[in-house]
Amino acid sequence: MADEQVLMVSTIEALVEGKKYSTLRDVLVTMQPADIAELFEEIDNSKLPLLFRLLPKEQAADTFVEMDSDQQELLIRGFSDAELKEVVDELYVDDAADIVEEMPANVVRRILQQADPDKRKMINEVLNYPEDSAGSIMTTEYVTLRPQMTMEDAIKHIRRTGIDKETIYTCYVTNNNRVLIGYLSLKTIIMSEDDAEVSAIMGTDIISVTTTDDQEEVAATLSTYDLLAVPVVDKENRLVGIVTVDDAIDVMEEEATEDIEKMAAITPTDKPYLKTSVFDLWKARIPWLLLLMVSATFTGMIITSFEDALSVLPVLTAFIPMLMDTGGNTGSQASVTVIRALSLGDLEFKDILQVMWKESRVAVLCGVVLAAANFLKIRLVDVMLMGNSSITVAVTFAVCITLALTVLCAKLVGCTLPLLAKKLGFDPAVMASPFITTIVDALALLIYFRTSMTILHM
Amino acid sequence: MADEQVLMVSTIEALVEGKKYSTLRDVLVTMQPADIAELFEEIDNSKLPLLFRLLPKEQAADTFVEMDSDQQELLIRGFSDAELKEVVDELYVDDAADIVEEMPANVVRRILQQADPDKRKMINEVLNYPEDSAGSIMTTEYVTLRPQMTMEDAIKHIRRTGIDKETIYTCYVTNNNRVLIGYLSLKTIIMSEDDAEVSAIMGTDIISVTTTDDQEEVAATLSTYDLLAVPVVDKENRLVGIVTVDDAIDVMEEEATEDIEKMAAITPTDKPYLKTSVFDLWKARIPWLLLLMVSATFTGMIITSFEDALSVLPVLTAFIPMLMDTGGNTGSQASVTVIRALSLGDLEFKDILQVMWKESRVAVLCGVVLAAANFLKIRLVDVMLMGNSSITVAVTFAVCITLALTVLCAKLVGCTLPLLAKKLGFDPAVMASPFITTIVDALALLIYFRTSMTILHM
Repeated sequence: MADEQVLMVSTIEALVEGKKYSTLRDVLVTMQPADIAELFEEIDNSKLPLLFRLLPKEQAADTFVEMDSDQQELLIRGFSDAELKEVVDELYVDDAADIVEEMPANVVRRILQQADPDKRKMINEVLNYPEDSAGSIMTTEYVTLRPQMTMEDAIKHIRRTGIDKETIYTCYVTNNNRVLIGYLSLKTIIMSEDDAEVSAIMGTDIISVTTTDDQEEVAATLSTYDLLAVPVVDKENRLVGIVTVDDAIDVMEEEATEDIEKMAAITPTDKPYLKTSVFDLWKARIPWLLLLMVSATFTGMIITSFEDALSVLPVLTAFIPMLMDTGGNTGSQASVTVIRALSLGDLEFKDILQVMWKESRVAVLCGVVLAAANFLKIRLVDVMLMGNSSITVAVTFAVCITLALTVLCAKLVGCTLPLLAKKLGFDPAVMASPFITTIVDALALLIYFRTSMTILHM
Repeated sequence: MADEQVLMVSTIEALVEGKKYSTLRDVLVTMQPADIAELFEEIDNSKLPLLFRLLPKEQAADTFVEMDSDQQELLIRGFSDAELKEVVDELYVDDAADIVEEMPANVVRRILQQADPDKRKMINEVLNYPEDSAGSIMTTEYVTLRPQMTMEDAIKHIRRTGIDKETIYTCYVTNNNRVLIGYLSLKTIIMSEDDAEVSAIMGTDIISVTTTDDQEEVAATLSTYDLLAVPVVDKENRLVGIVTVDDAIDVMEEEATEDIEKMAAITPTDKPYLKTSVFDLWKARIPWLLLLMVSATFTGMIITSFEDALSVLPVLTAFIPMLMDTGGNTGSQASVTVIRALSLGDLEFKDILQVMWKESRVAVLCGVVLAAANFLKIRLVDVMLMGNSSITVAVTFAVCITLALTVLCAKLVGCTLPLLAKKLGFDPAVMASPFITTIVDALALLIYFRTSMTILHM
């Protein structure tokens, strides 16, 4: 696909150079909007307005939605008012709101001026909801039916009004006060008798979200109940919008990326990697690095306080990285497992004791195997093969006992911290590898020195 | 929601005790299949067959699909042949195949016996495709139209055959040899004139996947092009099935979980955390821990070879954890960013030089800030506040220079290894924090000792 695209870019550029506009148009109209947008990213920006103008109206708008915001802005700045109006007219309200959010104020003003009054009002409504809420991602273009309509009426109504709706496959039934009282899939409508009444056939086991619900919850609702769209209602249960499954998929991808970034101690950004500037990458990473570096001071202090022991028995130092790494790895495994289960809804805070009991048993199994393997490795490789005679049997025991105890502590810290974070209203994803590692490092060293001093009588 | 459910479970159990079956049925029919399945998980297994039998046929089948495989097996073992047939008849082929895959052989035999011959053939077909391929997750229940049909014919055809189809919202047009030649959404059909011909109106810019494509690719295709379903074709471009968006969402969740688990050095399991046995958790974690522990041997060997230097200047040891941790964290940030960009399709191997150049600049910015912060922290806190006079200015410089160099190495290792893994056909997700940390630890120590010996003339 990559090679194909390089080829495509050079073909398109050659056609532009040669002014073969009708060939260009013939090529572009066969392509999907998402693919055209990807192609546009590779193409010299100066050629963009010309290429964009070759697209038929509807395809142009669909492609515009898929483009990145820098290129959108560039196009808008070059548009005449009439051209801008043509694109804005074709946009769904939720897409228009997304675009407006990314633009500077003067561009926003122009877009809103070109939208017709109804659409302007709807865009402004969506823009007023808090970021990442159901209200901010919903569209206000859906099909409503009235309870007394027949199936025949309903199909006529859909035919008349459906063309501009983001979906016609789920229709919503409202009463005179715009309160949501039922839903009806187009499948049910098609399959029912023409004279059946909406109120008799509609489903009333409504699944809905409210405008202030978090977008992650909205996506989870669509996924749990296998819906194509979910209705968004206000506090009085009045229907104000819908979120369709394609937007829910985008939210799920975005949230998974955010979780993964947080787990790696990165502040989430919403731009693709190659589009993110060096400065933005730095900004997303440096605060966490500084915080974690300062936290690592404690491990340094622990080592300093045991400096005497280490200078008597310098061989102890050689095992510090292995103990810290293994502790960090076992802790990360537990924390990441718990964080993911929390975000998939498989776990809740009330399960904490069950989780701790489960992780303790896993820790004992892991600890015993790791300690045994380590014992063999030290005696066979380090002592016999490498001839390091300063590693006595007592030192080996100290290391292996520390290892087993560290694994136990690491698993317990790893599984409880994300649950506690969730309970306290923090994002559990922050309690992943980097933080767990820092805490477990300090614990591992404390256990190491205490165990060594006891076993080696220092 | 959790409290609500506890309440629900006790209500249901009280109703079962009191033999209030008609009340129970009235309560259950108002509920969504996904919610009933969740409720069943909490309920005593002995009451399960009784409760399940209260559900109306269709709801029973929908609930059955959402249940976990242990409970499914328990129910099947209790079913009469007639009951089993009733459930199997209601299942979609892809769901039936999923269930069959999890069951022991004797239960599989019973299920296939009760399926009618057509369905049995389709289930077997789906089962024959490799795991995680498009063929293995597709359903064979879709609507096909012929090119010469009119819109009126099409709607009649959908009304007659649509009831058992997994979706009727995208219909596929095939020729006499079952070759896929176009598609038509129900929206287009409804919006078009009754006497228009399918061949004149159908879309021919077909997006399809082949039976052997990976399920991750299938999900990405649905997501990129905002589709409700994607057709699956064989090598001769004959239509053999479709994958609907709800299944694509499940695949996306599963794949994100797998990536996250691999990044934390865990072999992916497909069961929810609380359902996974201690032994299975252990099995998924211990191989990686052992491998990483043995790899940490190298860091131990590096320390051993510089034991003399450390005993001359024991204060150097105190900075080892901070250097290792910061190196690991910076490396993880780069690797996780690159892994995620790779799996979202934002990056490819050909971008490697661009990525390295970007990460080098981020590394320089991060390295300089971290080194400066660390310099201040050591001089102000460790030396002035804590009075640790053994930390000379030269030692401070050695630590800070090491820090900056380590950050640079860590970012470069972190961003290149996942790209190389991808190029070599391995899963880039394995090149996340744990492996990067192990490699960066060794590098950090080598840099540390070389720098110290040069600066401190040891």
